[in-house]
Amino acid sequence: MPQHTIAQLAHVEILSAKPQETEDFFVDLLGMSVTARDGQSAFLRAWQDTYHHSLIITEAPDAGLGHIGFRADSPAALEAVAASIETTGRGTGWIEPGHGHGRAYTFTTPDGHRNEVFWDVERYQATPEEASVSPNLPQKRPLHGNPVKRLDHVNLMAADLPATSAFYQEHLSFLVREKITMPDGDLGHWLSVSPLPHEIAIMQDMTGTAGRLHHVAFWYGNDTHLNDCAETLRDYNITIEAGPSKHGITQSPFMYVYEPGGNRVELFGANGYMIFEPDWKTRVWTPENLAVGGSMYGLELPPTFFAYGTPNVEIGEDALTEGFKHAPDQVPVS
Amino acid sequence: MPQHTIAQLAHVEILSAKPQETEDFFVDLLGMSVTARDGQSAFLRAWQDTYHHSLIITEAPDAGLGHIGFRADSPAALEAVAASIETTGRGTGWIEPGHGHGRAYTFTTPDGHRNEVFWDVERYQATPEEASVSPNLPQKRPLHGNPVKRLDHVNLMAADLPATSAFYQEHLSFLVREKITMPDGDLGHWLSVSPLPHEIAIMQDMTGTAGRLHHVAFWYGNDTHLNDCAETLRDYNITIEAGPSKHGITQSPFMYVYEPGGNRVELFGANGYMIFEPDWKTRVWTPENLAVGGSMYGLELPPTFFAYGTPNVEIGEDALTEGFKHAPDQVPVS
Amino acid sequence: MPQHTIAQLAHVEILSAKPQETEDFFVDLLGMSVTARDGQSAFLRAWQDTYHHSLIITEAPDAGLGHIGFRADSPAALEAVAASIETTGRGTGWIEPGHGHGRAYTFTTPDGHRNEVFWDVERYQATPEEASVSPNLPQKRPLHGNPVKRLDHVNLMAADLPATSAFYQEHLSFLVREKITMPDGDLGHWLSVSPLPHEIAIMQDMTGTAGRLHHVAFWYGNDTHLNDCAETLRDYNITIEAGPSKHGITQSPFMYVYEPGGNRVELFGANGYMIFEPDWKTRVWTPENLAVGGSMYGLELPPTFFAYGTPNVEIGEDALTEGFKHAPDQVPVS
Amino acid sequence: MPQHTIAQLAHVEILSAKPQETEDFFVDLLGMSVTARDGQSAFLRAWQDTYHHSLIITEAPDAGLGHIGFRADSPAALEAVAASIETTGRGTGWIEPGHGHGRAYTFTTPDGHRNEVFWDVERYQATPEEASVSPNLPQKRPLHGNPVKRLDHVNLMAADLPATSAFYQEHLSFLVREKITMPDGDLGHWLSVSPLPHEIAIMQDMTGTAGRLHHVAFWYGNDTHLNDCAETLRDYNITIEAGPSKHGITQSPFMYVYEPGGNRVELFGANGYMIFEPDWKTRVWTPENLAVGGSMYGLELPPTFFAYGTPNVEIGEDALTEGFKHAPDQVPVS
Repeated sequence: MPQHTIAQLAHVEILSAKPQETEDFFVDLLGMSVTARDGQSAFLRAWQDTYHHSLIITEAPDAGLGHIGFRADSPAALEAVAASIETTGRGTGWIEPGHGHGRAYTFTTPDGHRNEVFWDVERYQATPEEASVSPNLPQKRPLHGNPVKRLDHVNLMAADLPATSAFYQEHLSFLVREKITMPDGDLGHWLSVSPLPHEIAIMQDMTGTAGRLHHVAFWYGNDTHLNDCAETLRDYNITIEAGPSKHGITQSPFMYVYEPGGNRVELFGANGYMIFEPDWKTRVWTPENLAVGGSMYGLELPPTFFAYGTPNVEIGEDALTEGFKHAPDQVPVS
Repeated sequence: MPQHTIAQLAHVEILSAKPQETEDFFVDLLGMSVTARDGQSAFLRAWQDTYHHSLIITEAPDAGLGHIGFRADSPAALEAVAASIETTGRGTGWIEPGHGHGRAYTFTTPDGHRNEVFWDVERYQATPEEASVSPNLPQKRPLHGNPVKRLDHVNLMAADLPATSAFYQEHLSFLVREKITMPDGDLGHWLSVSPLPHEIAIMQDMTGTAGRLHHVAFWYGNDTHLNDCAETLRDYNITIEAGPSKHGITQSPFMYVYEPGGNRVELFGANGYMIFEPDWKTRVWTPENLAVGGSMYGLELPPTFFAYGTPNVEIGEDALTEGFKHAPDQVPVS
Repeated sequence: MPQHTIAQLAHVEILSAKPQETEDFFVDLLGMSVTARDGQSAFLRAWQDTYHHSLIITEAPDAGLGHIGFRADSPAALEAVAASIETTGRGTGWIEPGHGHGRAYTFTTPDGHRNEVFWDVERYQATPEEASVSPNLPQKRPLHGNPVKRLDHVNLMAADLPATSAFYQEHLSFLVREKITMPDGDLGHWLSVSPLPHEIAIMQDMTGTAGRLHHVAFWYGNDTHLNDCAETLRDYNITIEAGPSKHGITQSPFMYVYEPGGNRVELFGANGYMIFEPDWKTRVWTPENLAVGGSMYGLELPPTFFAYGTPNVEIGEDALTEGFKHAPDQVPVS
Repeated sequence: MPQHTIAQLAHVEILSAKPQETEDFFVDLLGMSVTARDGQSAFLRAWQDTYHHSLIITEAPDAGLGHIGFRADSPAALEAVAASIETTGRGTGWIEPGHGHGRAYTFTTPDGHRNEVFWDVERYQATPEEASVSPNLPQKRPLHGNPVKRLDHVNLMAADLPATSAFYQEHLSFLVREKITMPDGDLGHWLSVSPLPHEIAIMQDMTGTAGRLHHVAFWYGNDTHLNDCAETLRDYNITIEAGPSKHGITQSPFMYVYEPGGNRVELFGANGYMIFEPDWKTRVWTPENLAVGGSMYGLELPPTFFAYGTPNVEIGEDALTEGFKHAPDQVPVS
């Protein structure tokens, strides 16, 4: 198998019991656009996303992750990934071409998160009215909302973080760029296939639930836009869970909110740093510096940040404390 | 007469032969809102303007200034201003209460620019849907365009700069905060009644035409928004004359564009500085440092900046050179 | 007495038991400069402060407020203020000209905070090497630290907020721009003599201690610089208490830190809004919207923010809870 | 040969006849640090550069490019690159390990620019005092100057642009991300081995001179820092050639200045966009949209931008016009 097989995170599907409210959030407040609808799903993209869509909103009884879509490096890389995953028994077969991309190989992580990988894609084609004067931009900057620029990453909660992370490393060429290591085990991994510090993050699910979504993140590339967005969202009844502030981990300026369907969404500022070293050593966070990892500035992340995911699960205080038994005092628990 | 009589620049009326395109520019691109219409006029405000309107767009054969509206410090100050101007013969009488304010005293500057001053005002009242959770904000941040926050200042071209400036100083309590002094006379004055370095600027009209408008300026309070705005306006066929950049004069981050009706509009970034000294000495720019005055960073302002105003006038190259005969080499002429 | 007598907050003196560390904080990290030393005091200014100094650091056994210095509107206004305060019995006499200003009238607030007011001032004169090419800037931007631009405001804790606020209103022409009103009384007042929403804030001291300092604030005028500063301060062992974030009250982007002597210092971003209305109605915050007042984005302010001041006082948990008995649940207490 | 062999641009050596002034510029104004000295050379790095150095300043009679250093993807990739270049006759042999890296293979482009590629590197190790609390940062943010974060790219002028570009594509795995194509040929290529739109740009040298340097660029990752930097540099007698503004090409916020030795240096703001598509189609700029390519906002780049490089060459106006004969009217010529 080639060393590098996955080119990029291409799209994320989220589930919502309030699909219209969820869509309005992404369109009216975050400036995204709907490019297609099909059955219970709406397909959306941000103005600098180059493909047909980067987000799918699908109606479902509960919030959560639908699936994650990756684009392979090449047709050969796609075949190699599929062959590699077939050996694990986690493959769920090829699917026919659908909205925005060609045939795709589907599979689940050991934790049950659904994924697909494909090569052929449909690029977004601006109408003459939407087209930018700049040929490197897919379209003009939108005039509605606080327009996010592109999909950045997805963060998964996993009942079995080590297995989930190992799966992405072994079969999809991801590298662990940073991680949190506690006395009893790892709490979080940040993985990427590019100079971005992560396209996928995996957090240990404190509740022990498998296959949940922590958040999907969209990129502004600019910290001021986080402030604009926060100022607006607060006034439009969107709950801001944390930020705007900055993580030490990945050095990323962040803001976390709950879209009306209940999924956590991150708005992402300027690039903190990028990794160009081919032999980058995983940066390790430990109880000693974990507070810096959570917040570069000193803000304490709220307990929900560590326990809430979608679908939501009811958790007793004891269960949570148990889940956190290896957490240091500085990690707040609810 | 009290020493301080004018509280603030309250609104500016501009004329446009393409009133609908002009209105669309301010609404769709700059995020302003229409609060009333009457005859050939539309009344608009930015989201942090506290009164009924800060901009009036009136249909007319040519672009240019309609009038400037000031709010007095008090009812007594209004009477004092009116009495003072009556002595000059430039008064044009009281007018009845109209849209957004009470009875107003009207007059013209020695150069012919129309002005009015009033005390009673109608404050903008947000609908429950528009209301912000923050009681110090007139409304929520809009979700359309790149929303400017408030009217900042107006810049006039004058055939007789000294007389026009003296009029604002003597009868409306303005102070000259900065000025450009050339060997043959003054080229520009920046005047204010508040810690802002200017609510009114006056530039010598190189063409000798009286009573023209150089620009009206709206405030973002943030330099990043100038970049957002520039990026958008370029793609929506709005001509950017200069910037985003920063003047040395008033230390203001600027961008100049032409609205579709032909009037120059300035988009204004963060506050460069504010004047809290009660005995501030007018800062004087001379041929030696005028290039810094035009651009803190070194960008040369285009010749149009010095010669174009509304209504536009045809000027021969000789006439212009003549008008600029006292200008240093570093002031570009067309 | 004239209606408007105080022009501006000119300087603040803070006390420190670690004067060298305190000075290093303001110089090395915040980019300020020492302009004079005298006895146990060092005099400093930020690069856009126009006078001799805006901050005095004086060695003392405990942290806290030394005094606050105001500049009057005029010589006559100075006399009027002095005469007005003489009637209250709070005057402590005229002092001879000292560093940076002429003779000053001194007095204490009903809560015991020391103040002075003067007219004559010494302006900072840049050396040829420090001088800017722009005549409206007192000097070049410094090349050390994250240079704050100017003193912005001071925030006092008062055992008797109503009396302290009334004193500034009645004798120093301050206006209350915003306030927090709880069922049992007012928790905070924000007062100004200019379009800034405050040069002085007064918070009810929950511990019942008189005359303490909550914080002194320096202005960046730009939110990005708060992030730069936070990033640096965290790495230089300065405790960040809260932020960077944004208050609803005064709409101000903030960051709070403790300088090494223990005094709280606020770093202040872009102007949230300015008040140009001459008849501005005090905006009132109540239990219903107080959470927005504390944080426009939703961040909860830490309990220390409400209880810690300088000099520090030991407070039992009961005492504090008692002090907060009228505080809503959303106000965190330690 | 593997498809991808070069990991990153690792360092650039520039020549200066005023090496101390050049060093002071990078240290005092741009916040870089000297990590070693050897003979006529000083080695520097920016605070987020992870290796021993990213810039070498070497004393020489004329300004210009010393050499460019690349890090290979792996030891095998290094050997593959060397073997590939050996076939071209442009190899100049292996050199022994030097400051900051192991043995390196050296070669020149068809235009004569000197290059080297290596695998082994020495990473910068912060002293305990310099170390950041965040393990993904090489050190604390410096407290001097306006600290740039890292080396971003180098821009070469070439007498033979097509051959130079082809060389980087064929032997160093670079891809052409954007280019300017005029009726008579290509004027500029932007090439990269990563999602950055360029680590190397090549511009046709209008003077026909071979092997010159257009500029070396350092990254702020934040547009506000360009304004800070511009404000400072203007006051410290550094000539700003253009900006801060934004190119359409690569969508990069830029500022160009001349360091005291005469080399052009670019300060680079936020990332305009990144390329994650594995089959990205080169974006082509033509006479029709070249003005947008030069400036997203409409600013005209000065004639020097197209003709000046280091070492400087005297050029007659005719020669330049000749060199520009295929340039459209909107490209300014001196």
